[in-house]
Amino acid sequence: MIKGIINYSHFLMEEAVKKGDTVIDATCGNGHDTVFLSQLVGESGHVFGFDIQDQAITNTQALLARHKLTNATVIQDSHSNFMHHMPVDKLTRLGGAIFNLGYLPGSDKSVITHSETTILAIEGILSHLKQNGIVVLVVYHGHEGGDEEREHLMRYVRLLDQKLYHVLYYGFVNQKNDPPFILAIQKRN
Amino acid sequence: MIKGIINYSHFLMEEAVKKGDTVIDATCGNGHDTVFLSQLVGESGHVFGFDIQDQAITNTQALLARHKLTNATVIQDSHSNFMHHMPVDKLTRLGGAIFNLGYLPGSDKSVITHSETTILAIEGILSHLKQNGIVVLVVYHGHEGGDEEREHLMRYVRLLDQKLYHVLYYGFVNQKNDPPFILAIQKRN
Repeated sequence: MIKGIINYSHFLMEEAVKKGDTVIDATCGNGHDTVFLSQLVGESGHVFGFDIQDQAITNTQALLARHKLTNATVIQDSHSNFMHHMPVDKLTRLGGAIFNLGYLPGSDKSVITHSETTILAIEGILSHLKQNGIVVLVVYHGHEGGDEEREHLMRYVRLLDQKLYHVLYYGFVNQKNDPPFILAIQKRN
Repeated sequence: MIKGIINYSHFLMEEAVKKGDTVIDATCGNGHDTVFLSQLVGESGHVFGFDIQDQAITNTQALLARHKLTNATVIQDSHSNFMHHMPVDKLTRLGGAIFNLGYLPGSDKSVITHSETTILAIEGILSHLKQNGIVVLVVYHGHEGGDEEREHLMRYVRLLDQKLYHVLYYGFVNQKNDPPFILAIQKRN
């Protein structure tokens, strides 16, 4: 079967990220991607996970502990401040980042990601990303404010220089209720 | 690297099509996909290739001969007439089809595919397709008439029932000059 959105987001990370890489989970949420990335980069790699909400930090730390994973640092701050929290030797091995844009499922729907900070974070990450490194955005846009974030993001990624980056759109076009889609940005050789 | 359009169209066929399947190359063109599909389904499978242009038929037959492939039938007719050319025992094993929409590279740019016959062919193929079978459309739309075909197709696939079909859009959004993109329709279980 054609891969669904979450499976394909993981597939893209698996294809681009190597053992020993540093990766960023820009939106920890319930911690599922943080755990996935921690296992992907292995013991020699490291995950930096960001979220602004207490509940996300608590859930993610609990899930990492349950899986006995120790190569992840969870930070309660905006992803746009990622550089303040990552030592330079880790930053030079940055192989990828993943964003789940929208709100935390099962939580306060009024707390949403915003295109301004999202784009700031993407800009910073792209400037530090290794060649072939990837930024995967899973865009949930069915909530209030979702349209605006989606349109800002689309405008931003369409302008990324095609000589420097591949920007892929991956989404299902016959589903009702604003299904999520993927934007993936890969740094070219 | 994120797969380019042609690689990804082949990847989708490889994931969905099995040895022994019947497959359709709806637009033989220079025969590259016909050869790819012939090798994919193996000696127990069969490819039916369609094209309306002499040059495409000649090129495809020559390429098949050069690869010593004998499990492909090349037919000079519109893909919308596919049913008239395929024996029923082959039709019941229909696992996939591929369309390259636009014009034949290196040939007369005034001979293009048209949405009416394309959609007729897709409708017929979907009705005969096995479960998990796939129709991959590679949409070239930079030529005159390309916008119209693209918009008709998008309108058509958006309305396919999501309970019966997955419809994926796969394309690069930061490239200049109307790059091709993929629409893939997979029949659900």
